[in-house]
Amino acid sequence: MKWDAWGDPALAKPLSEDIKGLLAAVLGVSGEVVAGPAADKVVLRPSTLADDDLKALAAIVGASWLSTRDADRLPRSGGKSTPDLLRRKSREPQDAPDAVVLPGSEEEIAAVLALCAERRIAVVPFGGGTSVVGGVDPIRAGFTAVLSLDMRRFDQLLTLDEVSGEAVLGAGLAGPQAEALLAARGYELGHYPQSFRFATIGGFAATRSSGQDSAGYGRFDEMVRGLRVITPAGILDLGRAPASAAGPDLRELFLGSEGVFGVITAVRLRVHPLPAVREFEAWSFPDFATGAAALRAVEQQGTGPTVIRLSDETETAVNLAMTDQIGGTQVTGGCLAVTVFEGDAEQVAARHALTRAALLAAGGTSLGEAPARAWEHGRFNAPYLRDALLAGGALCETLETATGWAQLDGLKAAVSQTLQSALQDTGSASLVMCHISHVYPTGASLYFTVVAAQQGEPIEQWAGVKHAVGDAIMANGGTISHHHAVGADHRPWMDQEIGELGTRILRAVKDAVDPAGILNPGKLIP
Amino acid sequence: MKWDAWGDPALAKPLSEDIKGLLAAVLGVSGEVVAGPAADKVVLRPSTLADDDLKALAAIVGASWLSTRDADRLPRSGGKSTPDLLRRKSREPQDAPDAVVLPGSEEEIAAVLALCAERRIAVVPFGGGTSVVGGVDPIRAGFTAVLSLDMRRFDQLLTLDEVSGEAVLGAGLAGPQAEALLAARGYELGHYPQSFRFATIGGFAATRSSGQDSAGYGRFDEMVRGLRVITPAGILDLGRAPASAAGPDLRELFLGSEGVFGVITAVRLRVHPLPAVREFEAWSFPDFATGAAALRAVEQQGTGPTVIRLSDETETAVNLAMTDQIGGTQVTGGCLAVTVFEGDAEQVAARHALTRAALLAAGGTSLGEAPARAWEHGRFNAPYLRDALLAGGALCETLETATGWAQLDGLKAAVSQTLQSALQDTGSASLVMCHISHVYPTGASLYFTVVAAQQGEPIEQWAGVKHAVGDAIMANGGTISHHHAVGADHRPWMDQEIGELGTRILRAVKDAVDPAGILNPGKLIP
Repeated sequence: MKWDAWGDPALAKPLSEDIKGLLAAVLGVSGEVVAGPAADKVVLRPSTLADDDLKALAAIVGASWLSTRDADRLPRSGGKSTPDLLRRKSREPQDAPDAVVLPGSEEEIAAVLALCAERRIAVVPFGGGTSVVGGVDPIRAGFTAVLSLDMRRFDQLLTLDEVSGEAVLGAGLAGPQAEALLAARGYELGHYPQSFRFATIGGFAATRSSGQDSAGYGRFDEMVRGLRVITPAGILDLGRAPASAAGPDLRELFLGSEGVFGVITAVRLRVHPLPAVREFEAWSFPDFATGAAALRAVEQQGTGPTVIRLSDETETAVNLAMTDQIGGTQVTGGCLAVTVFEGDAEQVAARHALTRAALLAAGGTSLGEAPARAWEHGRFNAPYLRDALLAGGALCETLETATGWAQLDGLKAAVSQTLQSALQDTGSASLVMCHISHVYPTGASLYFTVVAAQQGEPIEQWAGVKHAVGDAIMANGGTISHHHAVGADHRPWMDQEIGELGTRILRAVKDAVDPAGILNPGKLIP
Repeated sequence: MKWDAWGDPALAKPLSEDIKGLLAAVLGVSGEVVAGPAADKVVLRPSTLADDDLKALAAIVGASWLSTRDADRLPRSGGKSTPDLLRRKSREPQDAPDAVVLPGSEEEIAAVLALCAERRIAVVPFGGGTSVVGGVDPIRAGFTAVLSLDMRRFDQLLTLDEVSGEAVLGAGLAGPQAEALLAARGYELGHYPQSFRFATIGGFAATRSSGQDSAGYGRFDEMVRGLRVITPAGILDLGRAPASAAGPDLRELFLGSEGVFGVITAVRLRVHPLPAVREFEAWSFPDFATGAAALRAVEQQGTGPTVIRLSDETETAVNLAMTDQIGGTQVTGGCLAVTVFEGDAEQVAARHALTRAALLAAGGTSLGEAPARAWEHGRFNAPYLRDALLAGGALCETLETATGWAQLDGLKAAVSQTLQSALQDTGSASLVMCHISHVYPTGASLYFTVVAAQQGEPIEQWAGVKHAVGDAIMANGGTISHHHAVGADHRPWMDQEIGELGTRILRAVKDAVDPAGILNPGKLIP
C-alpha cells in the first residue's frame, strides 16, 4: 500500500482527458500534476522510545517484530483521508509512531499492553490503515511515546462451522485474504466496503464498517457473532449465542470501539455458501426523490436484493458510479440505480422478480445489466481517482451520514448546500455528488463526494468546510458517521451524537478496561 | 391480572379430563385442586417507608398516584415464575414493595429517583409484572425501603412516521394497547411473546424480549430504533439514525438493562403496515433433528416466513402446541412445525413457495392449514394451563436458551437429561418437552416445558433442578437466557455468560448512571 496515496501503486491512473475537461470547465482546475516528495525525503519526528523500552518490547515479541525504521513508521503514520494525503506531501517534519510492533499471539499483546501501561506509552492498534477519520493518528496525548501495534500476524481462518454457518477469522486478515480462505472452502463473508482490498477483519469490527452488499448480507456489525478482545484489564470473549437476553449486549460496546477499549484479535462471523447465481440490473429514475422512494419500497417490503444503490442527478451525470467512464458522455440520464442479486437460482429469481416489480411500480425504468456490471467492475477504484485529483490541484473528499426516510431529502439538501456555500466561501466552485448505498426499513445512508479547487492551504480549506458540514449533519437529524467511524476527526460531534451522559458512559467503560488510558488516545471519546 | 396466577381470571380453565389422565398415568399426580389463600388473607411485610418519605413522594407525583395499600402492593410483589406463584400461596408474611408510585412525566421520574438516591430507597421499575426470572422482586438490599415505580401512565402513541415506518410508543403501553393504537392507523409492531397481553413496551426493551413472529419481524431489540431513558445521573436519548458508525451502540446497553441502569420512558420502534394477507401451513417431520435441519435451511436461505417453529416428539405427542387439544388423541405424529406468512399477496405467495420448497426438500410433509391455525388460536394460553397444573399438584415450569445450529442437538439432550435426572432425584418422573421458536442464520432458541409431580417443598424442589439445568446450559454452549432475561434468578450464571471483566464493565456503567445503586438492586449484575 502506498504511503502517500490510496492503495496499490499498480492501479494508480492519471486523470483521463474527460475528467480534465470536466475539472477545467466546472472548477477551473488545470489537472497538471504537482509531484510530492519521495518517501526518502519525508522527515518524520524522531522516535522518543528509550533503548530500555525497546529492549523490553523486543523481549516480548522478538527483535524482528519491532522496528523504529522510518520505512516502517511512515506507512503507519496515519490513515487515508484527504487531509492525511495532503499532509504526507509536506516537507515539514511529520507525526509518526515511535515504533512499530507486530505481536504474534494474544499473550504478546497482553504483555505489550501491560508494559505500555506501566511505562506510559500509548498504543494505536493498526489494521489496514485505511481510516479516513484520523482513526490511527499517532497522537502522544501526554504519553512518553506512541506505539503502532500492527495486527497483520493474526491472519488465520481459525475455524469454519459449516452447519452453523460461521467462521472465526483472525483480526489481521485483510478483506481479500479472508475471502480467499473462505472461498477455498466454498464460503463467503460478503463484506465489500470500498476499503475491502486493504482493511482488516479487526478494523471492520472496530469501526462498524458497512459494505456494498449490506442489503443482502448486512452491516459488518450484523455479521458478528462473537469477539475476542485483549484489554489492559483482561480478556473478553463475547457472544455465547446467536441471540440472547442475558443482559446488555457487550459485543455492541466493542463494535465501534476503534481501539480505545481493547485490541480485537479474532471475530466469529456469519458466513454463507458462495452464491451459485448472480444477476445484475440497473435502473433509471427521473429524480432522486422518486428513486429514494423506490429503494424505500424495496427495503420496507423486504424484496431481498443483495446490492441496491441510487446515485443522484449530479453523480449520474458525471458517471461517478462507473469509474471507467467518469466525465465522459452521460451514460444513463436521470438517477442511476444498481441492483445485484446473489444466491441459489430459485432464490435469486424470486427476489429479482419482487424487486423488479417494486421498482417498476415506483417509477423506475430498467437499463438492463450493463450499467450495473460497469459499477461492479470499478467498485473499489474511486479512491485512486481521488489520488489523481489531489495531485492535479483539485480538492476531493467524501463524507457520509444516515437518517430516517422521512428526513432524507432534507438532510441531503442541507449537506449539499453547506458544502457548496462553505467551498464558495473559500473561493471555489464545487461539484457535489451523492448516493444512497445502504438501506434499512426505517432509513438510509447518504454518501457525498465533493470536488472543488484547492485554494490557499487545502488542509485548512477542507477543515473549515468539514466543520460546517458536521454541524449541518447534526442540525438536520443525521448521524456524524454511518460507516466511516469517529476517529479524531468526528470526535467534536460525539457529545451531540450520544449526549453528555452517553460520553460519560463511554469514559466509565474506558476506565474499567484501560485504566491507564494508553489505548488509541485522542479518538472516539470526547 | 391475577395476583396469584398468570393473567386474566376470565381465561382460567380447569384441567381437562385428557390432561388429568395424562398427569395420573405419567406422573401419578391426581390433579385435584388445592386452593391457596384469598388475597385478603395474604400477609405482606409491613411498609417501612417513613411518613416524611411518603409526603415527599406525594409532593412529586400527587397523593393519588402513591399507595401503600396491600391491594396495590400485592400485585407488584413479584413476577410470574413458578416459584413466584408457589410463594404467593404461602400463609407466611410475604415480601412486597413498601409503596407503589405511578409517575406521570419524565420530570416526576427524575425527581423520584433523586429523592430515592438521597434517602436510600431502592426503586423497581414495573411494567406488566410478567417476569419469570425474578426481575421485579422487591429486594431491599440494604436500602431503607423499596418502591415499585409503575409505568402504566406512559401509555401514548407519541408519534407515527409512516414514511420511515417508525412509531414512538410510551414504555407503559401493554402489548394489546400498543397494537390497538397502531392498528387504528393501519400499522402493526408485530411483537407477540407469550406475555403479549400484559407485558409492556418498556419491559420488552428492558428484557430483550422476542416474540413468536421473530422470524419475520425480528426480536424486539431489532425493532428498536431509539430509546429515552431517565437515569439518576441524567437523561439519555439514544439512536439518532437507523444505523451508525459513531462509536459503540449505547442502545444495546439499555436493551436488556432490566431497570438497573435507568427507567425507559419511550421507545422508537420500527412498524409495518398491517398485513393484507396471512397464510398458514403446518408440517410434520419424522424426528427433531430432521425438522431442525429444515428450519435451518429455511433461515440460512432466507425464504422469509413470519413465524416458524418446531415441536419435538414429546411436545408433539401431547399436542402442547395446540392448547385446546393437550393430552388428547395425538393430532399430528412425528414433530410438528408451524409456518405463518404475512404481508402483501405477492410477497406472501413468493415466501410461502420458497419456504415450502425448502421444507419439502428437507423431508417435511405438509399437514395443511388446520394445525397451524390451532396453534395460533391458543398461542398465548399456555400459562393458564400452568396455573391449573400447579393448583392440581403438578410442578410445571418453562426455561429457554439458544446456541449455534451445530450445538443444538447436544444442548437439547443435555438439558433434557439434566431435567429428568434432577427431578428423578426429587422422587418425581417428568415430562420434558421442547420446541424451537426463534431462528437465526447461525443458530436457534430451545424452549423447554417440564411437568413433574410436586414433592416436599416444591419451591426448593424446583430451585435444585433449576441450578442443575443452568449449569448444564453453560457447560453445553448455551446462553443462560434467550428471551426471559436475567433478573434475580439467572444472576448466578452471569459471570460465566459474559466473563468476570464483562461483569466489571456492567458495574462501571452502573456506577456512572446510578451512583447510589438504587435501581432494581439484586438483579442482572452479579
